[in-house]
Amino acid sequence: MPVAVSHGQIESIGDAPHFIAQDRAGRTLAEHRWPAGGAETHETLLAHLLDWVDGHLGADALVAVGHRVVHGGASLHRPARVTDALLDALARLTPLAPLHQPHNLAPIRAIAARRPGLPQVACFDTGFHHSLAPVATRFALPRRYEAEGVRRYGFHGLSYEYIARRLREEHPALAAGRVIVAHLGNGASLCAMRDGRSVDTTMGFTALDGLVMGTRCGNIDPGAVLYLQQHYGLDADAVERLLYQDSGLLGVSGISGDMRQLIGRRETTAKEAIELFVYRIARETGALVASLGGLDGFVFTAGIGEHAPAVRGLVVARLAWLGATLDPCANTRGQGRISDAASRIEVHVIPTDEEAMIARHTFETLDAAPDAEARP
Amino acid sequence: MPVAVSHGQIESIGDAPHFIAQDRAGRTLAEHRWPAGGAETHETLLAHLLDWVDGHLGADALVAVGHRVVHGGASLHRPARVTDALLDALARLTPLAPLHQPHNLAPIRAIAARRPGLPQVACFDTGFHHSLAPVATRFALPRRYEAEGVRRYGFHGLSYEYIARRLREEHPALAAGRVIVAHLGNGASLCAMRDGRSVDTTMGFTALDGLVMGTRCGNIDPGAVLYLQQHYGLDADAVERLLYQDSGLLGVSGISGDMRQLIGRRETTAKEAIELFVYRIARETGALVASLGGLDGFVFTAGIGEHAPAVRGLVVARLAWLGATLDPCANTRGQGRISDAASRIEVHVIPTDEEAMIARHTFETLDAAPDAEARP
Repeated sequence: MPVAVSHGQIESIGDAPHFIAQDRAGRTLAEHRWPAGGAETHETLLAHLLDWVDGHLGADALVAVGHRVVHGGASLHRPARVTDALLDALARLTPLAPLHQPHNLAPIRAIAARRPGLPQVACFDTGFHHSLAPVATRFALPRRYEAEGVRRYGFHGLSYEYIARRLREEHPALAAGRVIVAHLGNGASLCAMRDGRSVDTTMGFTALDGLVMGTRCGNIDPGAVLYLQQHYGLDADAVERLLYQDSGLLGVSGISGDMRQLIGRRETTAKEAIELFVYRIARETGALVASLGGLDGFVFTAGIGEHAPAVRGLVVARLAWLGATLDPCANTRGQGRISDAASRIEVHVIPTDEEAMIARHTFETLDAAPDAEARP
Repeated sequence: MPVAVSHGQIESIGDAPHFIAQDRAGRTLAEHRWPAGGAETHETLLAHLLDWVDGHLGADALVAVGHRVVHGGASLHRPARVTDALLDALARLTPLAPLHQPHNLAPIRAIAARRPGLPQVACFDTGFHHSLAPVATRFALPRRYEAEGVRRYGFHGLSYEYIARRLREEHPALAAGRVIVAHLGNGASLCAMRDGRSVDTTMGFTALDGLVMGTRCGNIDPGAVLYLQQHYGLDADAVERLLYQDSGLLGVSGISGDMRQLIGRRETTAKEAIELFVYRIARETGALVASLGGLDGFVFTAGIGEHAPAVRGLVVARLAWLGATLDPCANTRGQGRISDAASRIEVHVIPTDEEAMIARHTFETLDAAPDAEARP
C-alpha cells in the first residue's frame, strides 16, 4: 500500500466549513475555519486545499487525485481516469445515490476546472461487488427494469476491498474461507466474502437498503414506502428525504443519528435504537451466512465497528448460535482478534482505510494508462 | 378440530365465476358456471351459495360464517364477531392490503345484508404474529409512524397457527423447539416459531414484503421503489400495481406467476425465476435462524410447499449448511418427514388447513360471546 504523508478533510461544506490537515502521527499541520453563512463553494474550498498541498508538498509533488465515487452503475466497476465523458456518465447515476453522488462529483469538477492537466481517478464504491452472481443482484421485477439498471449493486466496496487485502496478508487461511465484514459507520452494510470476493451484501440498488444507519431506514417493506405516500400525501421526493435523512438511529431514538450520542443514554428510545441496529445486523448476518453456506470469520470495521466495543459485544452475543464467543478484554482493546480461543468463528476488528485503497487504485490506473485522453 | 362436511369455492369473480362444492372425499356435490361478462356480484354469488348450503345442509344447519381477513392492524388480533363497527375498522385498514382486504370484506357485507341474524366471525391473518417482540416489528422510521400503525405485522397467521397445532399434536418435542414454517403458495412467507409462537416472519407491513411470490416482488430496496417513480414517471398507485401484479415469478420469468407453469420449462428465464424464488427462501431462512438462535425443524406447507417436490429439493439443498439432508423418496411422496435419518434438522411437509382453523375460531368466538351485540 502507498504510505500516507498526511490526511485531512473539509467538513460542514455549505454551513461553517472547517479544513484540517494532519501528519501520520495525528499532529495538526494546518487548520482553517470559515464563518457560517459565507460564500464558500466546492471551488473556493478546493482552491484553498490545493494551495495548501502545493505549499506543503512542493508545487510539483501532486501527481494525481483519487476520488471515492459512490456509484458506478452496471458497467463501471474498475477505477477509471476522469474524462468529461466519465463525468457525464457518473452524473446520470445521481438518482441512484442522491445523497452522495453529487457531492462526489462536485470536487472532481472543481479540481478539473482549476488544474485541467492534473490526472484524476474515480474509484467506485460499487466495484468490489462486481463478482455477485445474478441471483444475488436480481430483484423480482419485470425484466425490462433489470435491463435498464434496476438491480442490486452493493456499496462500501473500497472498504471491503481494503479489508479483503488485509485479511489475505495477515490471515490467509481465514481470507480463503467464508467471512462477513461489517462496515458500520454513518452508512452501514455487511459483505459476505468467499475467498476474498463479494458473494452477497446488504445494500442494494441504492445506499438506502439493508441495515439501520445513522439517518437511513435500511430495509423496509416496499408497501410501507407506498403507504407513506398514499396515506400521508407525501410525494416521492418527500419520502426520499424522510427515509434518507430523518430515519435510522435518529428516527428511532428521536435523539441523534450518531451512535456515540446514544451509547450509555438512559432514554428508552436510545436503547431501542441500539437494539434495533444490533438486531438487524444479526438478522442480515444470518441471511448472508445462508448465501455463504456457513461462516468462518466476522470482521468489524468503520467508525462504529472500530470504536464501539459495547455495540460489538451486543452483535457477537447475537452470533452465539454460530459459535461466536467474545474475549471481553480483547474487545475492549478493540484491535485484532476479539473472539476467544473457544470461538468457532474468528471475530476481528480491522480498521478500514478507503483512502489507502483509493491511492493504490489511482497509482495503478495511471500506470496502466498514463494518458487516458491520448487513447483512441 | 371441527370436521369438514364439504368444501368449495367461487372463483373468477368479476370474470366468468365458477362455483364448486365437494364432499370430504373430493366428489363434486354441486357446480355452476356463469358466463363471462355477466352482472354477478359478491351479493348475487353469495345468494347462490347460501341457497345451496340451505338445500344441502337443511335450512337451520348454518349457525355461523367464519372469514379469513388478511389484516387486523395493530389492535385486532383475536378472532372477532362481526359488527358494523368492526367492518368499519377493517375497511380503514384497506390501504395496508389493497389486493386482499376489499375482497375479504365484500362477502361479509353481502352475507350480513342477506342474513342479518347470522353470526359472522372475522379471523385475522395477522393475529398469530401478535407475539412478535417490538424489535421484530419496528421499522427504523421516525416514531410517529410506528405510533400510527406503520410497523411489521406478518401474514398467513391462520396457516401458521394450524401448523403450530399440528406440530404440537404430532411432534411435541419439535413443536417446543425452533421451527421455521414455509407457507409457499401464490402468496409466500416464512414464520420462525419458538415453542409454537411466532418470533419473526418475512412479511411486513403489507403482504408485499419478504419472499418472491407469484406476482409480488417481495423484499426490494426502498430506494428502488422511489426510483421507479422518479425515473419512470410512475405514480405510487402505478408502482403498487407493478409490484403486486406484474412482479415476482411472473416478472422474472416473463411466462407465468404460477410455479406449476414454470417447473420443467426450458426457458432460461423460467429457471432463473425458480432459482431466485429458492435463493430468497434460503436467504430469509438464514435471517430467521438468526432470530431463533438456531434451528430444529423446517416445515413446508401451502400449494407450492405441499405439491412441488422439485422446489422443496432445491430449498433443502440450500439448507445443507444447517445440516439438513433430504430423503429423496420421502420428498417425492411429499407427506410427513422428508429429511433422512442423518439430518441435523427435521424437515416435514404438512398440508395446511386455514379453513379448519377458521371454523374452530368461529365456534370458540361464538361460545365465548354468543351475542356480541348484547355486550356493553
